Amino acid sequence: MPKISKKGILMPSSPIRKLVPFAEDAKKRGVNVYHLNIGQPDIKTPQVALDAVKNNTITTLAYARSEGSEEYRTKLANYYKKNNIIVSASDIIATTGGSEALIFSIGSITDPGDEIIIPEPFYANYNGFSISSGVTVVPVISSIDTNFALPKIEEFEKLITNKTKAILICNPGNPTGYLYSKEEIEKLKQIVLKHDIYLIADEVYREFTYDGLEHTSILSIDGLEQNAIVIDSVSKRYSMCGARIGCVVSKNKQFIQTAIKFAQARLSPPTYALIASEAALETPQSYFDDVKEEYVARRNTLITELQKIDGVKVANPKGAFYCVAELPVKDSDVFAQWLLEEFNVDNETVMVAPASGFYSTEGEGKNQIRMAYVLNKEDLIKSVFLLGEALKVYKD
Amino acid sequence: MPKISKKGILMPSSPIRKLVPFAEDAKKRGVNVYHLNIGQPDIKTPQVALDAVKNNTITTLAYARSEGSEEYRTKLANYYKKNNIIVSASDIIATTGGSEALIFSIGSITDPGDEIIIPEPFYANYNGFSISSGVTVVPVISSIDTNFALPKIEEFEKLITNKTKAILICNPGNPTGYLYSKEEIEKLKQIVLKHDIYLIADEVYREFTYDGLEHTSILSIDGLEQNAIVIDSVSKRYSMCGARIGCVVSKNKQFIQTAIKFAQARLSPPTYALIASEAALETPQSYFDDVKEEYVARRNTLITELQKIDGVKVANPKGAFYCVAELPVKDSDVFAQWLLEEFNVDNETVMVAPASGFYSTEGEGKNQIRMAYVLNKEDLIKSVFLLGEALKVYKD
Repeated sequence: MPKISKKGILMPSSPIRKLVPFAEDAKKRGVNVYHLNIGQPDIKTPQVALDAVKNNTITTLAYARSEGSEEYRTKLANYYKKNNIIVSASDIIATTGGSEALIFSIGSITDPGDEIIIPEPFYANYNGFSISSGVTVVPVISSIDTNFALPKIEEFEKLITNKTKAILICNPGNPTGYLYSKEEIEKLKQIVLKHDIYLIADEVYREFTYDGLEHTSILSIDGLEQNAIVIDSVSKRYSMCGARIGCVVSKNKQFIQTAIKFAQARLSPPTYALIASEAALETPQSYFDDVKEEYVARRNTLITELQKIDGVKVANPKGAFYCVAELPVKDSDVFAQWLLEEFNVDNETVMVAPASGFYSTEGEGKNQIRMAYVLNKEDLIKSVFLLGEALKVYKD
Repeated sequence: MPKISKKGILMPSSPIRKLVPFAEDAKKRGVNVYHLNIGQPDIKTPQVALDAVKNNTITTLAYARSEGSEEYRTKLANYYKKNNIIVSASDIIATTGGSEALIFSIGSITDPGDEIIIPEPFYANYNGFSISSGVTVVPVISSIDTNFALPKIEEFEKLITNKTKAILICNPGNPTGYLYSKEEIEKLKQIVLKHDIYLIADEVYREFTYDGLEHTSILSIDGLEQNAIVIDSVSKRYSMCGARIGCVVSKNKQFIQTAIKFAQARLSPPTYALIASEAALETPQSYFDDVKEEYVARRNTLITELQKIDGVKVANPKGAFYCVAELPVKDSDVFAQWLLEEFNVDNETVMVAPASGFYSTEGEGKNQIRMAYVLNKEDLIKSVFLLGEALKVYKD
């Protein structure tokens, strides 16, 4: 039998998705599962986006332009302008989700054996995209005790080698919920300019900042133009994860021209989803105000409830819709699977994402989980109740 | 300024798409351009697929399952059964276009530095996907004089090294239109079994076979189960290129389990397009009969008209909707650009794909072009007339 590749063996199973079969088995046994494992909000997609697809007049479902239409990218540039990001249509490539924006970026700036420095815990799929490109993730550990703030800049500098091609951050952070300050971004600017490397920022949660704090895009920082690559997506902004439309934005022309070659090879982003995404740009501000209010209430509920459980430590997220919690368990992979396979209260249980998959350092995050507060308050209260009950009876 | 990668430099511009800006300039000057450069048919998408999307009742556009729903894959397995391919839902992973099916396959079976043998000319983007995975394409040249039949099996064998992980064919062929016979597939079987490597077949044009010839899937060949990987797509079958739904099919469980990890990393295929693709499986047979009749007529028209031009040699395609023609020019890249920039008859011109991008051997295909017969007969006649007029006045 022919072999699979080393890359294929190294490729991680998604910590968000690998337990799905156990959840499906639980459902088959009649157990109701509260899904805190995945950033799939229950929030409604803006009606204007849904309607645009329902009212489409397509008769031949044709390829879109590889980088997205001039019109869509021009409207996107206008959206960015409202967010203090001055770019033009030619600085933007529409992609199939933020995932593809990352894949094109990593492909354009790294060769096999190169390294990317990422503060950890980080979005689990950064591991997968790096491995599939033959790139090594070099982690800088951030701590739950500082809410996962940016590690000291000296920690980054120690790790930079001639193989280092970029620092990658997620802001606001998945899974941490941490929102980097302008001062933290300025520190990163100094180091990437000094070492002539890229700063990639995954800013897909840009709109989700709380407690009066504002998001700072790396594209709004003077002097960072040639080094800054922004990863973006409509998935969370408009609660349309299933569209699979994102984009990569950079003022570095050589980078964009290179990334377009990757975009041409896969032909085009999905046409229906482009229609939805272009229409979504007309979403009224009231939608975002309502959504933000809802997420703040959910976060407050989740954190308050978690803090009531003995032995649980929880970070204080300022953005996105995730939080990392430390549990009194030895191995949260085993615990999360046990929740689905063996535990229930009145035929209900809860699904969480084990945090080890959000680290690349072996052994880190073993007693942590990521929870997405994408359910309504009542369901969140129920979910944390179930977690608390589970911890009372669980034996490592 | 930070550098781009060697991979990014090597990444080819698409021969199908790189001349698009020249076509757009021509249009701005009021010149009508006949597009034979791209496999974007003018054929209507089945109404049942279009209606399913228009009538969708989505309120939150959510992620799909990474590998596509059980229901969709079960229906796909049923479609395959009708095509003499016996597979189950668990042998199938839904992908974002055939492109992603190839990317997952290459990632699952190769590491940087590995090699894949491909008869050339081949679908241009095989180059891009290989380069982005750090893989080397090793070409076996096929000739227009034999209609691009499978090169002698000894030619393959000479090229196999311990770095060779697969032979990749496209059947029916893009850009050649060649349909491999069962005997040719059997020869490939012998060689992949002998050397314990994979046989990947891009079968996205399965339905497009002419002159009473039948398509032979590599998955219908006994004894090839563990080596066969099929790349598929809804793009051409239902004239829905813009959906961006494909799939990868294999009975090799280890391969599928590996490819699913790549699928999980990018989360899911586009949800609206999955709705269209699932509904498209209900397309009546009459649709395919009509489409095939239309393509045969188009092929006949294109070939007949091309053969009237002095100095043009053309292959005789038996499948897909492309043909490769040899022109009395030195460099078809220059010629194709000239057609858009400098030539017109009564404000009309024609766009073709230079064939050099369909070869990886430097210098091959320089006097060839690929034409897609995706326009109606009248437009094809006009297109070939324009090509003939152009060749009368063109100077290398």
